[in-house]
Amino acid sequence: MVTVTSTAKKVLLLLGTVTLLTTASFSSYAADKVYRLKLAETWGPNFPIFGDATKNMAAMAEKMSNGRLQIRIDSSNKHKAPFGVFDMVKAGQYDMGHSASYYWKGKVPNTLYFTTMPFGMVASEQYAWFYHGGGMALMEEVYSPHNLLSFPGGNTGVQMGGWFQKEINSVDDLNGLKMRIPGFAGEVLAKLGASPTNIAPGELYTALERRTIDALEWVGPGLDLRMGFHKVAPLYYTGWHEPATELQFLFNKRSWDRLPEDLQEILRVAMRTASYDMYIQNAHASAEAWETMLNEYPDIQVKQFPESVLTAMKTANDALLAEHAANDAQAKKILDSQAEYLKKARRWTTISDKAYLNSQQTAE
Amino acid sequence: MVTVTSTAKKVLLLLGTVTLLTTASFSSYAADKVYRLKLAETWGPNFPIFGDATKNMAAMAEKMSNGRLQIRIDSSNKHKAPFGVFDMVKAGQYDMGHSASYYWKGKVPNTLYFTTMPFGMVASEQYAWFYHGGGMALMEEVYSPHNLLSFPGGNTGVQMGGWFQKEINSVDDLNGLKMRIPGFAGEVLAKLGASPTNIAPGELYTALERRTIDALEWVGPGLDLRMGFHKVAPLYYTGWHEPATELQFLFNKRSWDRLPEDLQEILRVAMRTASYDMYIQNAHASAEAWETMLNEYPDIQVKQFPESVLTAMKTANDALLAEHAANDAQAKKILDSQAEYLKKARRWTTISDKAYLNSQQTAE
Repeated sequence: MVTVTSTAKKVLLLLGTVTLLTTASFSSYAADKVYRLKLAETWGPNFPIFGDATKNMAAMAEKMSNGRLQIRIDSSNKHKAPFGVFDMVKAGQYDMGHSASYYWKGKVPNTLYFTTMPFGMVASEQYAWFYHGGGMALMEEVYSPHNLLSFPGGNTGVQMGGWFQKEINSVDDLNGLKMRIPGFAGEVLAKLGASPTNIAPGELYTALERRTIDALEWVGPGLDLRMGFHKVAPLYYTGWHEPATELQFLFNKRSWDRLPEDLQEILRVAMRTASYDMYIQNAHASAEAWETMLNEYPDIQVKQFPESVLTAMKTANDALLAEHAANDAQAKKILDSQAEYLKKARRWTTISDKAYLNSQQTAE
Repeated sequence: MVTVTSTAKKVLLLLGTVTLLTTASFSSYAADKVYRLKLAETWGPNFPIFGDATKNMAAMAEKMSNGRLQIRIDSSNKHKAPFGVFDMVKAGQYDMGHSASYYWKGKVPNTLYFTTMPFGMVASEQYAWFYHGGGMALMEEVYSPHNLLSFPGGNTGVQMGGWFQKEINSVDDLNGLKMRIPGFAGEVLAKLGASPTNIAPGELYTALERRTIDALEWVGPGLDLRMGFHKVAPLYYTGWHEPATELQFLFNKRSWDRLPEDLQEILRVAMRTASYDMYIQNAHASAEAWETMLNEYPDIQVKQFPESVLTAMKTANDALLAEHAANDAQAKKILDSQAEYLKKARRWTTISDKAYLNSQQTAE
């Protein structure tokens, strides 16, 4: 199995005659060229799951490159700009970033479409769209003018619809509802009369407890449990707005181009694996946390929005997207690609995963 | 970003004084140590999707190692032993294999449990079990006495229940049914009066056309379309018996131990990524092929086994597994681990993927 090529053998023979250099320093010539990359992440230090994706990626890259790649991860407590990751990586202040594409929609509107969309694809469908359905090329089209490369950075799977204090039985119940729900899903709810707000994570629990807000969405059991929301808003609604939230690795294109091809491939594969791995890690963490919630917090009730509410949300969602498409040819191209892929992929999901899960006894 | 260490700089300075060696041959010292690995796969040459997983893995490993890893892939037309992969890798005749764990159950019974189980976990649940729920350690326990390492090697997602000529409306309809359905699922059906058989892939279409068999299962639209079964048995039943078929990379432990740590990590990550990638590739291929089937073959009808039939299959399945567990302490340990994990993971899947998919309009 192990083969030393004839060139290498010759070099070894010649080495015997070179007394200036020891074998150790000699072989370190290629191995010691270290590339140090700096990565800024949106998350705070030790943020679970999301932060594990960057650590996992960096550890794989370092080991696979035998130490030639060294990635320093700066959390938001260090760089102080959780939502400045796009700008810092674009400017070359950082070589890499870890964040989420939809955070940049105020700056570059069409970045919105590369994280997840309400009523959109689930994780397996969306990865298939990225890697086989044209998604990566469309993402490149959006990021390339900013000298940035963007890669999938970890999926949460279906996010829960959020924690509520009162049941939502009709569209009227959304009227005036104060809910922490940022981004595009917030716009959808605003169209139905709700008052979406954004509040810093550290203040969310108090805001919910003091009824400053009536409801909020976060992620899913794996990240929600430690936030304690279930103690003050025990109605846990199932998801509609983020069926496959995909985080993002950003790369400054000049930093990327400076790397030798083998290290580029090591990084490409490490990012790709870390992204899939986070999807699986979050599935595990959610299963564990949900079991804890079921055992220790019997007040929690799982609720689903009634069909009339979901239909109204979907109508509002479609109207907003139609506006986007009408105003921007690139947006139209991306939205058309996603809609077409979703239709095709969901037909298959319907007779595979959905049919299978529905044929099994509920595991309660 | 790019940093040349001081050691490397010193070596470069010294190099100027060494006239015996050119810089090119010098730097090739470390880079030219090529490790050649031979991989035997169960599949024939150019077998789609399954065969792409090995090619994808080998290409990533070669690029990431800058050519230091060279993997030669031998398909079954070369080694002539599609079901001899376990033995050939164990004996060191091949360094690696690509196959499926459940093929070895006649040789090492407890290998059965590391591919997929009827009524078992779906892909996200099973990957979570492998990587976070103790699955990898249990698999190592089974393979390690054979000097083999086993890694996930690509998932098909939910496999379809197969192509039938007549409807199955009751358990009685299974009585005497001649069906190509190999492995453990065949044993389950045998308990219900069916006659499971195995037939070489090349003869399947003719056997079905001539009514030598009444039904068969293969994989799913992505691999079934080119086989043409839909032309002679147009009832396409949804799946129950292989909800997350995971292929397998095998590694001879001595071959593995001889590799430097960086190349081991490159291979570990390349196998892990290729495995996830195949899951996504098959989801895409199935969506595409299913669209073709819907458009071009209007005779195809999707069917689900009635609840009474599924319940009888589940009862037969549980009885067989209880026998396995009663006869073998290791089997009991693995089955208990899977049952416990499935229960926990499915509770989460039920309020995430399942609830979401059921809340969406059926995509037809």
